[in-house]
Amino acid sequence: MNLLEKTLAAIEGADRMAGEQAQKRLDSLTKPPGSLGALENIAVQLAMIQGRSIPVSGPKVVMVMAADHGVVEEGVSAFPQEVTSQMVINFLNKGAAINILSAHAGAKVAVTDVGIKGNAIDHPNLYIRKIRPGTRNMAKEAAMTEDEAVAAIEVGIEMVNMEIDAGAGLVATGEMGIGNTTPSSAILACISGQSLESITGRGTGLNDAGLKVKQAVINKALALNQPDPDQPLDVLRKVGGLEIAALTGVILGAAARKIPVVLDGFISTAAALLAYKFNKNCVDYMLASHLSQEPGHRIMLDLMGLKPVLHLDLRLGEGTGAVLAFHLVDAAVRIISEMATFEEAGVSKHA
Amino acid sequence: MNLLEKTLAAIEGADRMAGEQAQKRLDSLTKPPGSLGALENIAVQLAMIQGRSIPVSGPKVVMVMAADHGVVEEGVSAFPQEVTSQMVINFLNKGAAINILSAHAGAKVAVTDVGIKGNAIDHPNLYIRKIRPGTRNMAKEAAMTEDEAVAAIEVGIEMVNMEIDAGAGLVATGEMGIGNTTPSSAILACISGQSLESITGRGTGLNDAGLKVKQAVINKALALNQPDPDQPLDVLRKVGGLEIAALTGVILGAAARKIPVVLDGFISTAAALLAYKFNKNCVDYMLASHLSQEPGHRIMLDLMGLKPVLHLDLRLGEGTGAVLAFHLVDAAVRIISEMATFEEAGVSKHA
Repeated sequence: MNLLEKTLAAIEGADRMAGEQAQKRLDSLTKPPGSLGALENIAVQLAMIQGRSIPVSGPKVVMVMAADHGVVEEGVSAFPQEVTSQMVINFLNKGAAINILSAHAGAKVAVTDVGIKGNAIDHPNLYIRKIRPGTRNMAKEAAMTEDEAVAAIEVGIEMVNMEIDAGAGLVATGEMGIGNTTPSSAILACISGQSLESITGRGTGLNDAGLKVKQAVINKALALNQPDPDQPLDVLRKVGGLEIAALTGVILGAAARKIPVVLDGFISTAAALLAYKFNKNCVDYMLASHLSQEPGHRIMLDLMGLKPVLHLDLRLGEGTGAVLAFHLVDAAVRIISEMATFEEAGVSKHA
Repeated sequence: MNLLEKTLAAIEGADRMAGEQAQKRLDSLTKPPGSLGALENIAVQLAMIQGRSIPVSGPKVVMVMAADHGVVEEGVSAFPQEVTSQMVINFLNKGAAINILSAHAGAKVAVTDVGIKGNAIDHPNLYIRKIRPGTRNMAKEAAMTEDEAVAAIEVGIEMVNMEIDAGAGLVATGEMGIGNTTPSSAILACISGQSLESITGRGTGLNDAGLKVKQAVINKALALNQPDPDQPLDVLRKVGGLEIAALTGVILGAAARKIPVVLDGFISTAAALLAYKFNKNCVDYMLASHLSQEPGHRIMLDLMGLKPVLHLDLRLGEGTGAVLAFHLVDAAVRIISEMATFEEAGVSKHA
């Protein structure tokens, strides 16, 4: 078995008994039952993942996967391709939004080059696991070979395992890749069967004409490649991306190790949808963070039954929404750990 | 002029020029323009409030106003009236959700008794400004006299001024008062003119029969008292509550001092709606935190053009949703203060 197969075989459903015990504890605390809504759900989910009735928080890391996209030559992005590389350098110099918000959340930023185009970036904090310098143009051929797609997934598994071995207890997904809402929309179109009009957005800022081009390009890529919606590896290699593959690996790896993974926006959730298609148990380990401005994001989350807690109209990626949600995960852990019970506080329970 | 009149006269609109400068700065940072959505809006709003292009965060406090409601004798709550007093003791002993979440947010909890029924609570950290031991039953008579309502508003103004004098730079609203979704729904029904079916919720956990009773009681109170929707003081005194009045005062006081105030859920937003009716400029100083499970909450927010950022299905009150949003306010300040510009980072701006 290769690393992907081994990882898939290791993913189990989370511990329902621990979840029930956590809900019982929550119901004993000085508040009406269920009144802390999603915070209670997060506490229960963490309990199920960790197999303990009172879950703990842990060191946080956002796994930022970066790669380029051949399809950018079709004119699907408002920014030029070299911005992928420039922004990765910005990440390494701690000047980007993900750096500021991760510092605010107390999270480490781990940046991996899975397939950036152009000159090599030389920086001690960059993990270089380049599979190839960007995908092929999916409007003309498959974006990756099967071997390349598996290798990119395994980069994600390897990197998340490394962070978990170093102590990470809470993982977020992030990415950088100019043009990467295009493969994400293509993945969703293939898996959901919904119309491109309802699931294709403006990415970082396309105008009306740009949006039409993007939809036509996705349409062409799907017609040409004919990905099989029931075969996630087929979808990923034909119309996906290297950083999306690596994020799928991050999610599979975290699930196999029973570590909760907070999803960022549209691109991260496309990766999550593929992970879910590989193994439905993965969803037990996923937390949705924010609802993106991309119209397809809600559709992806609905397909997995996930509910985002932050409504910030973000459309940046990088992992920014996911690290903002770390505060809420910690809040949920503190609620179940620190609140007084009705008995301890001498508060009456019923009218 | 009394304190209320002086405070109302001091409320000005926020500084639009500073807001424009803040947006210009945000557009120079290494991200697509507008891509940080509501975080950018928060940064701009703080800039406008503070009259400086790069806003700062400041010491945080949640103003928790507690009082009882005569209307509880009609059977409108799932919890008995003594829980108001019991929960205030829980707040003072730091066992409640608001204590845990405020500690998590780095915020002070300031608890004021504006009108709790029953035995006096003796605790060094409780501010006692009791106007009367609970409101009168609004289903039988006006909840307060005009003098009582003004005095309760002025408690809020006094308390928030005290906290601002002590250094508070960011204020949240919170409350405790068994039965207080009933006056909040009555206030909204009067001001919005919408049907009780669409704006009355289950509070802390009413069943179907309880919900019907609650709607009938509100209907009776409105028919009997005939509050004038254009006179916020009239609405407040006839179908409001003492803690709601005090929160209206907190919001008016914060606006007069140009301090941002983060609104909690349904009851806090009812108080905000009254403050807005007193002086429309107040809204410049308000930030919505979460969207409550109470169906009327979104209607209130829409009336003031406010958009909540947290969707957690909370229905607890106390200020819990508001203090959870402090993290996002700080994040917005850090983004505008700390991110690299396109020029600094050498990132290309356009395709």
